[in-house]
Amino acid sequence: MKERTAIQPTRQENYAEWYQEVIKAADLAEHSSVRGCMVIKPWGYAIWENMQRVLDSMLKKTGHQNTYFPLFIPLSFLQKEAEHIEGFAKECAVVTHHRLEKNQEGKLVPAGELEEPLVVRPTSETIIGDAFSKWITSYRDLPLLINQWANVVRWEMRTRMFLRTTEFLWQEGHTAHATEKQAQEETKLMLDVYTQFAYDFLAIPVIKGEKTASERFPGAVSTYCIEAMMQDRKALQAGTSHFLGQNFAKASQILFQDPQGESQFAWTTSWGVSTRLIGALVMTHSDDDGLILPPRIASSQIVLLPVIHKEEKKEEVLKYCRTLAEELRGLSYAGRSLEVIIDTRDIRGGEKLWSWIKKGIPIRIEVGPRDIEQDLLPLSRRDCPHREKKTFSKQNLLSSIKNILDSIQDTLLQRALHFRNTHTHKIDTKEDFYAFFTPKNPKNPEIHAGFALTHFSEDPNIEEKIKQDLGVTIRCIPLNEEEEGKCPFTGKKSTRRVLFAKSY
Amino acid sequence: MKERTAIQPTRQENYAEWYQEVIKAADLAEHSSVRGCMVIKPWGYAIWENMQRVLDSMLKKTGHQNTYFPLFIPLSFLQKEAEHIEGFAKECAVVTHHRLEKNQEGKLVPAGELEEPLVVRPTSETIIGDAFSKWITSYRDLPLLINQWANVVRWEMRTRMFLRTTEFLWQEGHTAHATEKQAQEETKLMLDVYTQFAYDFLAIPVIKGEKTASERFPGAVSTYCIEAMMQDRKALQAGTSHFLGQNFAKASQILFQDPQGESQFAWTTSWGVSTRLIGALVMTHSDDDGLILPPRIASSQIVLLPVIHKEEKKEEVLKYCRTLAEELRGLSYAGRSLEVIIDTRDIRGGEKLWSWIKKGIPIRIEVGPRDIEQDLLPLSRRDCPHREKKTFSKQNLLSSIKNILDSIQDTLLQRALHFRNTHTHKIDTKEDFYAFFTPKNPKNPEIHAGFALTHFSEDPNIEEKIKQDLGVTIRCIPLNEEEEGKCPFTGKKSTRRVLFAKSY
Repeated sequence: MKERTAIQPTRQENYAEWYQEVIKAADLAEHSSVRGCMVIKPWGYAIWENMQRVLDSMLKKTGHQNTYFPLFIPLSFLQKEAEHIEGFAKECAVVTHHRLEKNQEGKLVPAGELEEPLVVRPTSETIIGDAFSKWITSYRDLPLLINQWANVVRWEMRTRMFLRTTEFLWQEGHTAHATEKQAQEETKLMLDVYTQFAYDFLAIPVIKGEKTASERFPGAVSTYCIEAMMQDRKALQAGTSHFLGQNFAKASQILFQDPQGESQFAWTTSWGVSTRLIGALVMTHSDDDGLILPPRIASSQIVLLPVIHKEEKKEEVLKYCRTLAEELRGLSYAGRSLEVIIDTRDIRGGEKLWSWIKKGIPIRIEVGPRDIEQDLLPLSRRDCPHREKKTFSKQNLLSSIKNILDSIQDTLLQRALHFRNTHTHKIDTKEDFYAFFTPKNPKNPEIHAGFALTHFSEDPNIEEKIKQDLGVTIRCIPLNEEEEGKCPFTGKKSTRRVLFAKSY
Repeated sequence: MKERTAIQPTRQENYAEWYQEVIKAADLAEHSSVRGCMVIKPWGYAIWENMQRVLDSMLKKTGHQNTYFPLFIPLSFLQKEAEHIEGFAKECAVVTHHRLEKNQEGKLVPAGELEEPLVVRPTSETIIGDAFSKWITSYRDLPLLINQWANVVRWEMRTRMFLRTTEFLWQEGHTAHATEKQAQEETKLMLDVYTQFAYDFLAIPVIKGEKTASERFPGAVSTYCIEAMMQDRKALQAGTSHFLGQNFAKASQILFQDPQGESQFAWTTSWGVSTRLIGALVMTHSDDDGLILPPRIASSQIVLLPVIHKEEKKEEVLKYCRTLAEELRGLSYAGRSLEVIIDTRDIRGGEKLWSWIKKGIPIRIEVGPRDIEQDLLPLSRRDCPHREKKTFSKQNLLSSIKNILDSIQDTLLQRALHFRNTHTHKIDTKEDFYAFFTPKNPKNPEIHAGFALTHFSEDPNIEEKIKQDLGVTIRCIPLNEEEEGKCPFTGKKSTRRVLFAKSY
C-alpha cells in the first residue's frame, strides 16, 4: 500500500492545489478578506526578511543606496511615457477621494474628490524619474544608483498566492547613467546579482536571458530576466532587469551637462524582484510532505524536539535543549546567527514531528534523556527520508552543523538542476516542437512538457501563432549561448536557441 | 561681529524654517510632487534603516513576530468600531476604481468602479482583527504577538516633513491576550521598549505617560505615549501604546475558549512608532550649523577627509585612508559594523568640511601627508566647536573610537535632558499657568514657554477651555509620579501632576 503523504493532493494528483496546500500546511500565508491580497504570516515573512537582508547587502556592495518614494503617482505622471501607461492602465488601483462622510441615508461614502486622481504605484519609474530630473544636473551626479523596498499594487484578475497578488512586496532599483554603455552594463550587472542570489541562497538554478519584444516591460528598450523551472515544468520569471534607454529620461526630462557643457538625456535602468520569489522557492523544492527550505534563506534552520516520557526527566531535558540552542545560536551561518527553535508544545510527538516536516525546517534534532546520557543526538535532514537519522555527539554536532547545512543547501540546488536538465530538450523540427508541447496525459493536464530550446528567427507573427496554438511563449533568449542553426518554423538561419515553455 | 551660521535662518530667527533648512542641508528628504508626501533620500533613509534594525531586534526579543497585512481595508471593516471610523473618516485616501480608460475626448479617467470602496490603511486594527478572529480559537493560541513594518496614509490638511505627512512609514504592533491584566502589561511593556529605544539610541529623553480621553486613539480604552521636548520647547509625541480593551475584539469577533471551555472575547493592544522619529531626532539635537546625529543611529559615524595639496602625495593618502577605513569598519558598534565614508570629491576643502557638519556626521578625521608621517590624526566631534580638534595616533584612534562615539552619544542625551529640565516648571496657580503660556516675546512667537507640570482634576471642560485660551493641551499624565496637591483651576484635590505644553 502506498504510504499516505502529508500533503493531499500530491504534485502528480493536482499540482495547483498541492501548491496551495503546501503554503497552508507550512503556515506561510493565507488569503485576506481583500480581493487578491494575502496575509503573509510569520513563517513566510521570515523568509522575505532573510531575502531582504541578503539581497540588500548585495545591492549596497554594488553601490546602491536605499530611498523611499511616495505610494501615490499622479495620473499625469504615469501618462508621460506612452507605452508605460498603456501597459499598466488596465490594472491600476485609483484613489479618487480623500475622506468619507455620511450620505442622507447615514451610509459612509467617499467624499472630497481629488482634482487629479492618484494611482497606487504599480512600479515607480515615473515618480522616481520626476525626482531624478531635479537631482541630476551634471555628469558629476552620475551614475545615480538607488533602490527602494516597497509595496506595489497591480489589479490582477486572476491571482495566486505569492505568484500573482494584487498587492505585493518588492525591491525596485532605479539608476541613471551618462552613457548608453554604462546603463547597459548596469542592467546586466543587476541580472548577475539576481542570478547569484538565486543560485547561492535560494538554491534555484535560473536561466539568464533577454525577453522578446512582446514580453518587454512597458516602456523599456530591452528587458532581461531570470527564468526558473517549477516542478510542473512550467517556467517562472523570478526577476527582471530593464534597460530603459532614454525613454523615461525624455518623458521626465532627466537632463545633464556632459563634460563638454552639452545638455544630454540620461540613460536609465530599473530592476526588481518580489515576494513572488517565495512562490518560486515553494515550487522548486517542496515535496508531497510539504515545504523544504534551503538553509541559507530558511525562517529557522534547526528545531530541537525534547522527548519527554517521564515527568521527572523533563527539566533535565529542557535545560539541555536550552544550552544546546544557545551554543548553536552562537554560530553564524549565511551572514546571521543560526536560528534555533525549541518546540515545547504539549502535543503528540508524531503531530509535532510532522508539523516541522511540513514547515520545511532543514534540521530536526530529537533530544531524550537517553540521547543526553549517551551523548548521541539523532539528527534528521529535511532533504532525506523522514525516518533516516544520523547520530552526533554534541561536540561533533557543533563542529559539523555548518557543513550539514551546506550539504542540504547543495543537495537542493543539485536536485533542482537535475530536474531542470531532465526536462529541457533541444528541439529542431516543427513537428517535434508541436508534439513536445501537446499534452500526453489527459489525466494530468497540469504537468507540462518542460523547456524547449529551439532555433528561432524572431518573427513576432510566428511567436503569436505558437502562443495561440499551444499556450507556449518564448521565456527568454538565453545569454551567451551562440550556436549556428536553422529556425524550424521559417527555415531561416539562426545564431542562437530561444527558450520556449508554458509559464506562470 | 557675529559669525555666520551654516543654517539660515537660525533657530531663534525662525524655528519652523530652520527645521526645513536643516533637513535640506543634510539632504535627508524633500517634498515630492504628490501633495503631502515626501521623498526620503539616502542620508535620511539610512537613519530609518538603523531605527528599524535596532527596534526590530527589541521587538523580537520581547517575543513579537513580523507579518504583512494588506494595504487596503474594505470600508465595512473600518466601520466595525464606531469611535475608530469616527476618528479616521476625515483623513482617508479612498480607492474607488481598479483601472483607467480613455473617455470620448481621449482623456484617461478612472474606470471599473469597485462594489465596495477600499480605504488605504490609516492603521490596521480592523484588518488585523479580522485575521485574529480566524487565528485564535483557544487560550492556547494566546498571547498572539505580531508586528508589521508598513506604510500608512492619513490625509492631513497641513503637513510638515517627517512630523506629519500624508504617507508615512511605521511599525505597528498588534497583540491579543486572554486577560485584561496581560493586555495591560503588554501595553506598558511596549511603552518601556519605546522609552529605552528613545533614551539609548536616539538620545532623546522622553516622558512616559497616559493620554486624557480627548487625546486617546479612536477606539482605545487607554492610550499611553512618550513625549519629548523639541528646541522650540513644544512637545512632540514620539510613540504610542494603546490598551484596546475588548472593543476591537467585539468589533471583529476575536473569541477564544478559556481553560473552562467558556467562550470569551480577547483583550487586545496596539502600538507604533513612525518616521516622525526622524523629525524628533532633527529637532532635539541639531544646531544652527545643521544636523547632529547620535552615533548609535547615525547614517554613518565617521568621515575621512583626505587633505591633498600635492598631486604626488595623493595615492599615498588615499591608500592610507582606505586601510584606516577598513580597520574601522572591522569594529562593531551598536550592533553593526562602523560605517565609514572616505570623501574623495573634487571640491574645495571648506565646502567639503561644511557639507559633513551640515549632515551631522558624529566624527570627522582629516588625513594629510604630514598627519600620516607624524602618526597624529586630527579628529573633530560634531558635538564640539568646529575648530576644536584632538589628535590621535592611529592605534590610539582604533582603541578609543567606541569610547569617543559613546561620549558623543552621552553628551547629546545630557544636553537634551538639561534643556528639557531647564524649560520644565512646576506651576501651582492659575495666574502663573496663564502667565507661563502667554508669549513674552512677540518678535519670536515660535519659541514657546516649555512644559508645565500642574495638578489637575481631570475635568474635560477645563481642559478644553485651556486649549481654547492658550492653545495648550495635556500631553500626558506622567506615570509613577504620585504627589498630593490641589488643582489650581478647580481647587479640587489631586494625586498627581499632568504635563501641559504646546505640541506638534
